[in-house]
Amino acid sequence: MTTPGSLSGEEAASDGPAGGGARRSHRVTISDLARRLDISKASVSYALNGRAGVSEETRRRVLNLAEELGFHPNSAAVALSASRTRTIGIVIARDPALISTEAFYMRTLVGIEQYLNEVDSSLLLRLTGEHGEDLDVLRRWSRQGRVDGFILFDEHNEDPRIPLLKDLGVPCVVVSSNAPYDGVGRLISSPEETVTLLLDHLAELGHENIVHVSGPFTFVHEQLRVRLLQEHARRRGIRVTHFEGSYRYEEGAEMTRTVLAAKERPTALVLGNDLMAVAALRVATELGTAVPDELSIVAWDDSPLCELARPGITAVDQKTMERGRAAADLLLKIAAGESDLHHDAPPGELRPRDSSAAAPR
Amino acid sequence: MTTPGSLSGEEAASDGPAGGGARRSHRVTISDLARRLDISKASVSYALNGRAGVSEETRRRVLNLAEELGFHPNSAAVALSASRTRTIGIVIARDPALISTEAFYMRTLVGIEQYLNEVDSSLLLRLTGEHGEDLDVLRRWSRQGRVDGFILFDEHNEDPRIPLLKDLGVPCVVVSSNAPYDGVGRLISSPEETVTLLLDHLAELGHENIVHVSGPFTFVHEQLRVRLLQEHARRRGIRVTHFEGSYRYEEGAEMTRTVLAAKERPTALVLGNDLMAVAALRVATELGTAVPDELSIVAWDDSPLCELARPGITAVDQKTMERGRAAADLLLKIAAGESDLHHDAPPGELRPRDSSAAAPR
Repeated sequence: MTTPGSLSGEEAASDGPAGGGARRSHRVTISDLARRLDISKASVSYALNGRAGVSEETRRRVLNLAEELGFHPNSAAVALSASRTRTIGIVIARDPALISTEAFYMRTLVGIEQYLNEVDSSLLLRLTGEHGEDLDVLRRWSRQGRVDGFILFDEHNEDPRIPLLKDLGVPCVVVSSNAPYDGVGRLISSPEETVTLLLDHLAELGHENIVHVSGPFTFVHEQLRVRLLQEHARRRGIRVTHFEGSYRYEEGAEMTRTVLAAKERPTALVLGNDLMAVAALRVATELGTAVPDELSIVAWDDSPLCELARPGITAVDQKTMERGRAAADLLLKIAAGESDLHHDAPPGELRPRDSSAAAPR
Repeated sequence: MTTPGSLSGEEAASDGPAGGGARRSHRVTISDLARRLDISKASVSYALNGRAGVSEETRRRVLNLAEELGFHPNSAAVALSASRTRTIGIVIARDPALISTEAFYMRTLVGIEQYLNEVDSSLLLRLTGEHGEDLDVLRRWSRQGRVDGFILFDEHNEDPRIPLLKDLGVPCVVVSSNAPYDGVGRLISSPEETVTLLLDHLAELGHENIVHVSGPFTFVHEQLRVRLLQEHARRRGIRVTHFEGSYRYEEGAEMTRTVLAAKERPTALVLGNDLMAVAALRVATELGTAVPDELSIVAWDDSPLCELARPGITAVDQKTMERGRAAADLLLKIAAGESDLHHDAPPGELRPRDSSAAAPR
């Protein structure tokens, strides 16, 4: 087991005031390790931090002794001196009730956590309200040196989080739909790819009149999705009518009712998330519109809800867990000065199920 | 906005080596606040920490000035000196893929986060593998003073986490099914309540032959569920046959196939979680067993999957978000020395839906 450590940080901890260290009678320090192994404290520190400067044999001896003696650097001291907290921060400003019903966040967090666990790092998590409290938390955690950087979701237009973190000099990775060179890290999954997967699928089935219910336009990725879907559809001679939704079940149901009550009905519905897709399926079935014979339904993002619905809902697997992993990896590399700022997210895959079929004649 | 602070901690930060503080040219210190207000540094510290020892007026003046000047204690320094991290730890040792499909964890985490956000505190989260790595993380975070305490889920028999945290002297709250007085905090929701809700419902519908597919027996709460369901059913003259499941969809499907292939079929199936309940509904439908006319299906724990299935699956709403809130509240109170160790979780409620009906004659 390797542990983060830092020469001066560890020294500060053992010399410092009571606190974390006061819980035990004796804290093993880097000095103890150096004395026992008869090497310099700097070598011990290099070995513990996984840095160059010591042989593999020395590193092994240090790690073995550290484990044997129960050496644990005081993270507070380490953070004070080295700013390497082995912790990344995520602050999400969305309605918690909505978060709890959407698989997206949980799967992304699980992907991030899987990666962090492998590199022995942790996640500091805060769910705030939707009124800018997230900025306070980003500011405080940065100033307090609590995290090595942040992963940001749900980018808005002129998102104030980005200049804030740039000002504070704290690395961040935006899980992003676009790629402006504004000096922050971006894990980029362009909606173009999903648009192509969806339109290829629907065009092949002969759909020429589609309704798209997106998520809220406050999110950059939803603006891009709508624009790209319209553009690509136009080029293929497919008509796409757009409605702005909220990701909520009730609104997905409401919009589906409106769409199905119109004189000229689409032959396919594209819904911005899983909940709205399940809602659409439910409403169509209730109104006697056969899915997929009279209406195809597809979801932008796959989830167990899509998989377990009957008929199963065709969706794009956005590889959410893998994307979480990739975002955490990119952030740690940027924080260590080792990476380009922009990386591409793992590509999505269409999951064709029984909710989509040939357009009715 | 109140912030945690500590006299000696803040002093250590401003006098200490570079690090978090080095990011800005000037850090506002407790000394600055004391000088500007012409009061002692101790008074400033009391006011910032919400402790007794200063008048309400002084507290207000301190907090206002702290906000105005952008005072932020260095959490590393605070943690070093005061062991009050305003952070709680959660370490979950379950298959991440399973966690990502179960609503239970996300809703619990959201409830915890909602509460923590209200008291301006954070969650340090780690998902480890299932082979004891969680003990390492608990030990290290404790020794490093990174958290004020832990919330534990998924209690096992002779769970090694409990003596470990007691030895380390770190507060914890077990989200628990039972109430042994072993010196740790417990938020208790006895399965007896859910057993009663479920049996009242099924008995009223005339079911006398029930199969119960539980989660894994390694969990204390599953052992208790099985024992209590058997006991209560016996007293009512209802027969309950038990199978041990894994919470996984595939196993729920497999067991349902076995049960429905048997000569004497039950009239009702009780499944230990939402995924297995959806699986049972799916398999029954595929095999031509009408739900609820020939077979009633109920789930131990409600979720959107139960709500959105067709027919909707009768389930017990375990008030997971509220339970998360209550666990965080209890932990912070125990950490502050302000609470009894045992609290009752908010009671669950039956959500009757179309998957349960009168037993066939």
